[in-house]
Amino acid sequence: MSLVQEHTLHLEPRVREDARRRLLSVKGHVEGILKMLEGEPYCVDVLKQIKAVQGALDKVGDTVLQSHLRHHVVSAAQRGDADTLVEELMEVLKYR
Amino acid sequence: MSLVQEHTLHLEPRVREDARRRLLSVKGHVEGILKMLEGEPYCVDVLKQIKAVQGALDKVGDTVLQSHLRHHVVSAAQRGDADTLVEELMEVLKYR
Amino acid sequence: MSLVQEHTLHLEPRVREDARRRLLSVKGHVEGILKMLEGEPYCVDVLKQIKAVQGALDKVGDTVLQSHLRHHVVSAAQRGDADTLVEELMEVLKYR
Amino acid sequence: MSLVQEHTLHLEPRVREDARRRLLSVKGHVEGILKMLEGEPYCVDVLKQIKAVQGALDKVGDTVLQSHLRHHVVSAAQRGDADTLVEELMEVLKYR
Repeated sequence: MSLVQEHTLHLEPRVREDARRRLLSVKGHVEGILKMLEGEPYCVDVLKQIKAVQGALDKVGDTVLQSHLRHHVVSAAQRGDADTLVEELMEVLKYR
Repeated sequence: MSLVQEHTLHLEPRVREDARRRLLSVKGHVEGILKMLEGEPYCVDVLKQIKAVQGALDKVGDTVLQSHLRHHVVSAAQRGDADTLVEELMEVLKYR
Repeated sequence: MSLVQEHTLHLEPRVREDARRRLLSVKGHVEGILKMLEGEPYCVDVLKQIKAVQGALDKVGDTVLQSHLRHHVVSAAQRGDADTLVEELMEVLKYR
Repeated sequence: MSLVQEHTLHLEPRVREDARRRLLSVKGHVEGILKMLEGEPYCVDVLKQIKAVQGALDKVGDTVLQSHLRHHVVSAAQRGDADTLVEELMEVLKYR
């Protein structure tokens, strides 16, 4: 439960839909790796698939982050919740 | 299809089972985020969940990597496939 | 040359001083690795030192990022340069 | 002081020289950022420079890692220090 839920800083509907579509694909990809693991896969083939899923998740994260910056963070001073938003961001972000 | 499949360098059964269990949990976690996205989640709550899934995938990757190093890479000189294994590893690894 | 230099969005003096001190330490650390390399170091000892320097640079980056969010990004809507700041941030940041 | 120093698993001279050259460039880059910080830089310009240094350090790390894998890790089973080398590697590596 987030501290700023009362501000109703919801994820933008279009971004939410985009994230949903990407995560459905991530789920399918994870199911594919699970199927691989029923056989006798080569380690590096598994590592490559995990890396691909991580890349897909990075993209979901980037999309949500960009939307959050654009719709909520840049206007935080006006709304008065700047300290909370900066603190929260520093927890999920990592420079570079 | 991996270059070294003919060496039957399969993922260790115990590690495969561990990876399978962790990935089932990852799949459940992704389904949980998909459910969140049916409502009106706060951006940072979504980012936190994605970060948690990435952490879980990192652990699967670490487990598979360690097993690969231990069972296949350290004996590559004996088997004669060292160049292939190093090249493959450098593609999926990233220092730090 | 940054697009928003005309807004004089300078790095906070205290953060600048903190970054300067940390970077002097980073420089000393790099000089230490250079000295190691004059001898016959063990690979993993070099990797550990590089990893330590990367961690120190991460901290400088976090400090500068937090200051930028706090002093410039949260007020971007008021100033009218939100699009530029978000775009710039997405280039240097990477989710997770 | 590393556990395996007695094996004299030294960094390859050519890789050591390459690492030295790259780290001299890293040091120069850090000095450049220190000079920036004597003025009134824009936060994002500092972040970009730190990111560039991190990229350069990643490359040094990759070079040393590849050499370590090629010259020491793939022959660890023959030498009998496989457990130590795998354990050490897992500490400095991070999957993806």
